[in-house]
Amino acid sequence: MRKWSHGLAPASVVLLAALTVAGLRPATAHAHGRPPLRFGPAGVFKVALFADLHYGENAWTDWGPAQDAKSDRVMAAVLDAENPDFVVYLGDLVTANNLPIPNASLYWDRAISASRSRGVPWATVFGNHDDMPFEWPPEWFSPDGVPPLRCPASPPPSTPDSGCSFRGTPRTDLMAAETGANSRLSYSSSGPRELWPGVSNYVLQVLSRRRRTRAGDDHDPALLMYFLDSGGGSYTEVVSSAQVKWFHSQSQFLNPNGRIPELIFWHIPSTAYVKVGPKAKSEIRKPCVGSINKEEVAPQAAEWGIMDALAKRPSVKAVFVGHNHGLDWCCPYQELWLCFARHTGYGGYGGWPKGARIIEVTEDPFSAVSWIRMENGSRHSHVTLSS
Amino acid sequence: MRKWSHGLAPASVVLLAALTVAGLRPATAHAHGRPPLRFGPAGVFKVALFADLHYGENAWTDWGPAQDAKSDRVMAAVLDAENPDFVVYLGDLVTANNLPIPNASLYWDRAISASRSRGVPWATVFGNHDDMPFEWPPEWFSPDGVPPLRCPASPPPSTPDSGCSFRGTPRTDLMAAETGANSRLSYSSSGPRELWPGVSNYVLQVLSRRRRTRAGDDHDPALLMYFLDSGGGSYTEVVSSAQVKWFHSQSQFLNPNGRIPELIFWHIPSTAYVKVGPKAKSEIRKPCVGSINKEEVAPQAAEWGIMDALAKRPSVKAVFVGHNHGLDWCCPYQELWLCFARHTGYGGYGGWPKGARIIEVTEDPFSAVSWIRMENGSRHSHVTLSS
Repeated sequence: MRKWSHGLAPASVVLLAALTVAGLRPATAHAHGRPPLRFGPAGVFKVALFADLHYGENAWTDWGPAQDAKSDRVMAAVLDAENPDFVVYLGDLVTANNLPIPNASLYWDRAISASRSRGVPWATVFGNHDDMPFEWPPEWFSPDGVPPLRCPASPPPSTPDSGCSFRGTPRTDLMAAETGANSRLSYSSSGPRELWPGVSNYVLQVLSRRRRTRAGDDHDPALLMYFLDSGGGSYTEVVSSAQVKWFHSQSQFLNPNGRIPELIFWHIPSTAYVKVGPKAKSEIRKPCVGSINKEEVAPQAAEWGIMDALAKRPSVKAVFVGHNHGLDWCCPYQELWLCFARHTGYGGYGGWPKGARIIEVTEDPFSAVSWIRMENGSRHSHVTLSS
Repeated sequence: MRKWSHGLAPASVVLLAALTVAGLRPATAHAHGRPPLRFGPAGVFKVALFADLHYGENAWTDWGPAQDAKSDRVMAAVLDAENPDFVVYLGDLVTANNLPIPNASLYWDRAISASRSRGVPWATVFGNHDDMPFEWPPEWFSPDGVPPLRCPASPPPSTPDSGCSFRGTPRTDLMAAETGANSRLSYSSSGPRELWPGVSNYVLQVLSRRRRTRAGDDHDPALLMYFLDSGGGSYTEVVSSAQVKWFHSQSQFLNPNGRIPELIFWHIPSTAYVKVGPKAKSEIRKPCVGSINKEEVAPQAAEWGIMDALAKRPSVKAVFVGHNHGLDWCCPYQELWLCFARHTGYGGYGGWPKGARIIEVTEDPFSAVSWIRMENGSRHSHVTLSS
């Protein structure tokens, strides 16, 4: 990966049309050969959020693989019902701390295959479980012993014997596997090195349905989607001060006058969610909109300014997070909305019915609405995010 | 690494003379070209225990490297004063959770270089810190940012970009680096795969000073030293049921009639230490012997039978552990002794003066005594372990 200087160089901006501004790198998306994302002919762009799939739990038992099959079906049901233009995988695609294998990409790939198999483009952000090391069940050291595992029986002679140490798969390795040669529908990106250990930091632009602007070029973004790595797993659960600076420079560069509406995606709720949300386990009252409020918000470990940076930009309409499986509400925070997705996978804690938050953006006049589509086909919790 | 069947196959027994018993593998030590360990001409074998060196802390500051240099000097002082025949590194050679580098062998190697540079053979066991992943300081995500790190600036193009994820170095990798081509003084060994994720499980035999037995062969072991991996770091802090079985089969094979005295080495005290030790921070009274009792014993997470297995064998004279920096006592437990080493390194918690426990075994008539040699040259806490 090339080294970028800190600041304006948009290493992680997936620019979907060639930019010719002096000093800026050519568009990453062009290099990958991915076509630009674009609003449909009706001026609508619909996104499905798949949150907390938690693939790969207890593969040495029957119930683990069975629940993964059920998660496959949730995504299939949502995709069939909604036919979205894009999917955002909102972290915790896998439960890596439950994966006694050297490389979690096997399960990561299963999570994204729901979109790939239907030809729906997607993007991913990392959750706190995705790059965790395997946590050895203490009972495996008892006389019961270790169940049969996918342990590398004969590692290549040139590599050190891994000894089944199952240290988890680094974010960069997961991302490299996802965005490799056979993944032309992936719009994910490893962000600039300056933001490590956070990796999933990048911006996607969705172009207007109009093919030509008055200026005659093809580059007329009508929506910006910012993806941020909110940490966890191998490091602190946080959006860092460096990420805040990066967001500031990216948004200033891409949308200096705030003309383009902006949506934000990461995994772990910020502390602002605690402030604006209903009291834990209480009823969800207006202005909040949602159907379950079954637990306390589990926020990031610190707040280093991202919420101030977002709140200062009227162009930012909403933030979407996962992480809390028992919450699915949206609440206003100053001029924007803070939304939970809906627990989509059968993996992870919580027995609430599964579903997915849908976001529908209309470009002209701009509007953004959202609802939750359940596995059983029902819809609920409709909310207007642009008012 | 070859695959061994469970049970009698002594994959991890470093047999220091050729064994010709049918069905047993040739001696590992022969394969490595290491000479047998042997009692000296006076019939004495002296071992120094270096415990909890904790190399590699805060390498991005001044105090970290300074404390590593001090740890070098402690070991030099002890080796010069005692001139031991053998050194046992009793775990936590490094503080891997404080090492923002891809491979901790750099610091592991520094720990063992004290013995290597003097030509003293040694063995190592793993502690809970040796294979831990780097723990990112939360403040590095604040505006203060990340200090300069040894981050791989340009990884080889064929390997995935590590992204500075610093996942810790697997026990097997540390051991492979230690026992590689240039380490003819290392008597360490990666144990049988059946015992993973524990790695440092092996036996060393120390031969009698008599070069010929009445039977005319050269193989007359006068001391057995068992090394066990007590876990921690990447997995549970425990001696597993599988290790207990392994100990049983090894000791039955090597010492069926209990003629040979046996010493045991691992890192984390077993729960039996809690039972026999003095109350935390109280005075150390007879029959216990030691000089500091400054904290509570921090025992393993579970006891799966190793203490029963040891107590049943009158040939087992003592167990030696590290882990607790503020404890240096020996206390009797049934017919054997449970001993702490002495905190040797300047790394890790605790400001108590540094030193090393010494064990002196005399072969004929058998006796085993121990004391603590301090960095400043003083000796204290003499105890007879063979009475």
